[in-house]
Amino acid sequence: MKNYIVEDEWNIIESGFDPHLNKISESIFSIGNGLMGQRANFEESYSGDTLQGNYVAGIYYPDKTRVGWWKNGYPEYFAKVLNAANWIGIDIKIGETTLDLNKCEIISFKRILNMKEGYLERSFVVSLEGNRQVSVVTKRFCSIVDDETGAISYAITLLNFDDELTITPFIDGDVQNQDANYDEKFWDEVYHEVHDQSAFLGLRTKKTNFEVCTGMQFEIHTSKGPLVSGSQKITKEKYVANEVKIRVQKEEKLTIYKYAANLSSENYPKGILLSTCHDMLQQVAAKGFDKMLAEQAAAWEKKWEESDIVIEGDVAAQQAIRFNIFQLNQTYTGEDARLNIGPKGFTGEKYGGSTYWDTEAYCVPFYLATASPEITKNLLIYRYKHLAKAIENAEKLGFNNGAALYPMVTMNGEECHNEWEITFEEIHRNGAIAFAINNYIRYTGDKDYLISYGLEVLIGITRFWSQRVNWSDDKKQYVMLGVTGPNEYENNVNNNWYTSTIAIWCMKYTLESLEYVRTQSPESYIELTERIRFDEFKETAEWKSIIQNMYFPKDDNLGIFLQQDGYLDKEQVLVKDLNPADRPINQKWSWDRILRSVFIKQADVLQGIYLLEDQFDEATIRRNFDFYEPRTVHESSLSPCVHAILAAKLGDEQRAYEFYLQTSRLDLDDYNNDTDDGLHITSMAGTWMSVVEGFAGMRIKDDQLYFHPFLPVKWQSFSFNILFRGSVLNVKIGHDGVHLENKSVTPLTVCIFDNAYRVNEFANLYVANSDSRNDIQV
Amino acid sequence: MKNYIVEDEWNIIESGFDPHLNKISESIFSIGNGLMGQRANFEESYSGDTLQGNYVAGIYYPDKTRVGWWKNGYPEYFAKVLNAANWIGIDIKIGETTLDLNKCEIISFKRILNMKEGYLERSFVVSLEGNRQVSVVTKRFCSIVDDETGAISYAITLLNFDDELTITPFIDGDVQNQDANYDEKFWDEVYHEVHDQSAFLGLRTKKTNFEVCTGMQFEIHTSKGPLVSGSQKITKEKYVANEVKIRVQKEEKLTIYKYAANLSSENYPKGILLSTCHDMLQQVAAKGFDKMLAEQAAAWEKKWEESDIVIEGDVAAQQAIRFNIFQLNQTYTGEDARLNIGPKGFTGEKYGGSTYWDTEAYCVPFYLATASPEITKNLLIYRYKHLAKAIENAEKLGFNNGAALYPMVTMNGEECHNEWEITFEEIHRNGAIAFAINNYIRYTGDKDYLISYGLEVLIGITRFWSQRVNWSDDKKQYVMLGVTGPNEYENNVNNNWYTSTIAIWCMKYTLESLEYVRTQSPESYIELTERIRFDEFKETAEWKSIIQNMYFPKDDNLGIFLQQDGYLDKEQVLVKDLNPADRPINQKWSWDRILRSVFIKQADVLQGIYLLEDQFDEATIRRNFDFYEPRTVHESSLSPCVHAILAAKLGDEQRAYEFYLQTSRLDLDDYNNDTDDGLHITSMAGTWMSVVEGFAGMRIKDDQLYFHPFLPVKWQSFSFNILFRGSVLNVKIGHDGVHLENKSVTPLTVCIFDNAYRVNEFANLYVANSDSRNDIQV
Repeated sequence: MKNYIVEDEWNIIESGFDPHLNKISESIFSIGNGLMGQRANFEESYSGDTLQGNYVAGIYYPDKTRVGWWKNGYPEYFAKVLNAANWIGIDIKIGETTLDLNKCEIISFKRILNMKEGYLERSFVVSLEGNRQVSVVTKRFCSIVDDETGAISYAITLLNFDDELTITPFIDGDVQNQDANYDEKFWDEVYHEVHDQSAFLGLRTKKTNFEVCTGMQFEIHTSKGPLVSGSQKITKEKYVANEVKIRVQKEEKLTIYKYAANLSSENYPKGILLSTCHDMLQQVAAKGFDKMLAEQAAAWEKKWEESDIVIEGDVAAQQAIRFNIFQLNQTYTGEDARLNIGPKGFTGEKYGGSTYWDTEAYCVPFYLATASPEITKNLLIYRYKHLAKAIENAEKLGFNNGAALYPMVTMNGEECHNEWEITFEEIHRNGAIAFAINNYIRYTGDKDYLISYGLEVLIGITRFWSQRVNWSDDKKQYVMLGVTGPNEYENNVNNNWYTSTIAIWCMKYTLESLEYVRTQSPESYIELTERIRFDEFKETAEWKSIIQNMYFPKDDNLGIFLQQDGYLDKEQVLVKDLNPADRPINQKWSWDRILRSVFIKQADVLQGIYLLEDQFDEATIRRNFDFYEPRTVHESSLSPCVHAILAAKLGDEQRAYEFYLQTSRLDLDDYNNDTDDGLHITSMAGTWMSVVEGFAGMRIKDDQLYFHPFLPVKWQSFSFNILFRGSVLNVKIGHDGVHLENKSVTPLTVCIFDNAYRVNEFANLYVANSDSRNDIQV
Repeated sequence: MKNYIVEDEWNIIESGFDPHLNKISESIFSIGNGLMGQRANFEESYSGDTLQGNYVAGIYYPDKTRVGWWKNGYPEYFAKVLNAANWIGIDIKIGETTLDLNKCEIISFKRILNMKEGYLERSFVVSLEGNRQVSVVTKRFCSIVDDETGAISYAITLLNFDDELTITPFIDGDVQNQDANYDEKFWDEVYHEVHDQSAFLGLRTKKTNFEVCTGMQFEIHTSKGPLVSGSQKITKEKYVANEVKIRVQKEEKLTIYKYAANLSSENYPKGILLSTCHDMLQQVAAKGFDKMLAEQAAAWEKKWEESDIVIEGDVAAQQAIRFNIFQLNQTYTGEDARLNIGPKGFTGEKYGGSTYWDTEAYCVPFYLATASPEITKNLLIYRYKHLAKAIENAEKLGFNNGAALYPMVTMNGEECHNEWEITFEEIHRNGAIAFAINNYIRYTGDKDYLISYGLEVLIGITRFWSQRVNWSDDKKQYVMLGVTGPNEYENNVNNNWYTSTIAIWCMKYTLESLEYVRTQSPESYIELTERIRFDEFKETAEWKSIIQNMYFPKDDNLGIFLQQDGYLDKEQVLVKDLNPADRPINQKWSWDRILRSVFIKQADVLQGIYLLEDQFDEATIRRNFDFYEPRTVHESSLSPCVHAILAAKLGDEQRAYEFYLQTSRLDLDDYNNDTDDGLHITSMAGTWMSVVEGFAGMRIKDDQLYFHPFLPVKWQSFSFNILFRGSVLNVKIGHDGVHLENKSVTPLTVCIFDNAYRVNEFANLYVANSDSRNDIQV
């Protein structure tokens, strides 16, 4: 755990430069706009330890997998998020000295991620040989207004000497993924162009043939105004640059404005990429840096209106929750149904792929409540579009009749993970995808989604479950063998309770949805069922039989659901009994020791209880929570939020707050020693859930919002906006009670501690706290 | 399945050349002498498809592993059998044409592996451009008399033209392993020397720093006698050669004799490798090819006396069983306790490592019965010497107090396999190692082995088992979780019956052995127990508690042992119900489908019943056999022999014979389409077991040999020699009964169908068949 980020409500601040922290900061201070993202690498040369990263949404490379021992069914390729051309680069030479923070004395250094306005600022003063002091202030952002562009202002001042500056803005496409399996470079050059004040580089990915045109246009301003003298054009393979030499006086500030665009063939025909890039750069350059930044700030203001959580009385918590929300919004805007939310977003290469079950299980609730319904709908349609691939994927594993198994990790719908115990067995992802459809409809009321898209996906998934279970002559019930549940510290178990539970839930929901579509849109129903050769009578009868006769492991003595068959055969020790030197066990213990232990990586039975809370009475939830929580090591970033929400529901406010702390500053404080690889983007949604579903106890039932809030002891208040059915509701929980403000024209009814309140358009409502929250709870 | 090997009782014959079969033949026609081995590559150039392979015993390279997803506890390196310098090479140029069977018309071609005398012969006639016909006859062998040397005679005749021949005997150390994980070459040159008629190349392995000096000495004989003119010396990096040009007449036979030696630093100080190699070559060259070959034939005659099985009435079966015995004897001579029996012997690179549980489970019975006890003892001592490494290996996985887990795959005692479900979980290998100690003592009566070596190994193994089980509060018994049994089509199961059974057997045997050593050699007992800090009271009490309270899965309704918990939850289909197009399932089905299926790769419960047969009554054996056999797909070469032996025991002669057929010609007929990689050396011992323990029903009980023989319908008789307690017994089973011949000075008592017969020194005994074997059986 690190503790070097300065606490501030709206800014992430690093003061002073420690090269050992640089890769962590490169992740934390990443900027993005949903279409492109950039780690906080330096514009100028840096010869120290760094992970260069610029990522363009939707562009990937199917790297040949590296496998120890091949298993039938493994995919040949692992789709990787690609490090794309470096567009931020501005090499600076002062006299004969290259500016390089790894090679000079750093007098001061500061990095600020301004989350309110959406830009990164960096300022430093360094001393070169001979006490020549240089000051630099840079700002840069990926525009969320002109969303294929980025802009940089780079101001340099020689503090105590005159000298010649050589300024070389460049685009460098000779980049590599650090995680390339065979050290291959993934890009080929297609074309390049260099003009006086601009340069363009067209690159094509090997195998996938994506094209990206990266362009830059720059201006240099001296104290006397824009510099008009020409530049020297430089080209090398996969590299274009303009070199400008200029004599500057002591204390004269020179500012380089660099505008860049990354246009991909995903969004334009290849033939017009270059010309479009050219035009786009002229437009943004004409607008100018300051105007672009002002528009950026205004656009971010609007985003914050939708999705901010305000915490009073706890700066660290405030900073953390905003950081989580900021990064989520930088990663995914929801405007393009071909895109998704990679676990590292645009902040690193690790994990590859862009889509995990994280999206449905963790991100969907965040986007539902903080953004327009279309955004979540696009996430659902993403999976709808991948249905054919999911069916293919299942066929490869031996399933048939349109059974769909969505991939564990994917970019284009094809599976690209290759660990049999996960790829083939962590099949609960199918459940999350079905549940997200239900979640979307529950939240938005848009039941017609079932007609247009949802039902077809649900049938594919249910067909899979119906083939994945088998009848046990021994148990006289259906069983589900050879499964890895959410708790990846168990592999290839039989009858994982969570997986079986979500599977049966899927089957029931599919039957309901079938009925809905059949009655509400008979012609769609007929079209669909004929197209996918759905044998209504036979298939539904089989599903019903499975639903009625499914086996779920449980222990009657303890009154709990069993994570899987045989779980109670394990030595029943608790996390508190673990020697701290043995933690995290995923770093300290051999894999077989972990597998044989009772310890749970992340919520598993409790994940199921969280999702299907209404099916269980509170005593059942409590017994399971009390049994599983002490066995859970939370070595997944996706775990504590679920425990926080359940602890909150059970009235254990202290523990709920502790679990929240575990997630909210995970990256800012580098809890797990892995932030250098990139941020844990998807688990950030879990942090938001901890606050809104945990502390505020928000639920959606019967087309209404419910809140069972409490205020963490340390806080004075917290508040957030919720978009719900056309209303914008601000909810503020203070010591005195709950304050609601309907900021929209749509009135709505909200239940606080199960009492219904109507909040009119643009009206406020205050619900006083009773002395004891428990008295109010139903 | 191929069918191109000509049937012959003593020879393996390939007639005609099919380049598509060449790699298969390169495996089948391999020669070796326990210290070195050579695939049947050609002496002259060959530009077609080939797997070059020359292997020197004990020389390996720890190749950096290739892993998809790293698991804690994996070894960094995978020890590989190394392709060493090519010592057989003789390049031939006829005029300007390089002799290359891939580039000329082949008029005739024949390869013969003469198993009786232990050499490989190859003869061919080819036609070069312009109908220039050339005849070549080569013989070569790895001497089992001068066992670091090989000799080649290469006779060439220009059939219908005169020309200049350029003859270039060479040693080429610029070789590579085809299975190198990162395409690395593993050898560096240390030195080279080229003389007029000889050349030497010293190579050192990277990382492991083994040195091997490969030397050659050659003579060229024309019709007029030895050629004395000099040669041109050629050296390149890692390559030495002598080039001789000679004008030959039509029909004049020219014979090149090439003697080679491979001397390794495992057997000599590095400083004298070159001079020793030099001397050794002079000695064998002085002896000459013909004398060497005569000695080779005589030595093989002796080997066959010990280990031959003669089958009358079935040439294919006779050829097959001899091929199996021949290859086993070529692989391991038992003279060096540092060596072991790789699954591919010296016939290929695949699988790496040299030592698997195959050695103890399959090879030990063969060597016990067909060779001097020292040979098996050396195999046991090999493991004794690796005990410290096995303890380290267990420590890496979290065990302590001297618990030993022998590696799944090893070269020097360190684990080098990296598949968690096997490396960490296929722990029954520990049981096989303990069982081999018992097997050796049961066979030889050498109980003192426990005192000198055995007990220490047994304690390490039993300590492992005692830590590997855990108490289940739920079952109120000890359980063994997270195991992969011999049936590798199940991974990470709980309570694999075989593993638990062999574990408890080990614990009991260790307790017995402790008692034996304590009473027979108190001073050794004290020395050992103090040295390994054995807490007699505490540890034995714990072991006894585990023995008494161990859980074994079973099904009372079916009256069978259960392969593992939950096995009966699987869909109970049978192999006969499988669509033939789905077989072998390991090539046709996804891994998860295989795992979820009921199908068994290789004997698992039945393996346990085979090893511990005396613990079970025949009805129990039959119920288990009848249950598991129909579920077993035998997709391991190690499986059918166990089923053959049990089927024979149960009186099912027809099935016993069918299982035998599945193993005996596995490589000769390339049943599994993988002989090109190398031969299945260790499973060849299983073929021998099928005949001797299956058809002849041989068992050792109470210091005596027992036979319950039957004669396969197709055969007229079969016979074999057994070395037992100083006696050499020839056993011949014919239609008329059993003929015994004691070929030694030591009388012995043998039980046939449970009647005891004394066979005096150099005496014969005939036991007539009753009409019905079942009547005789007890």
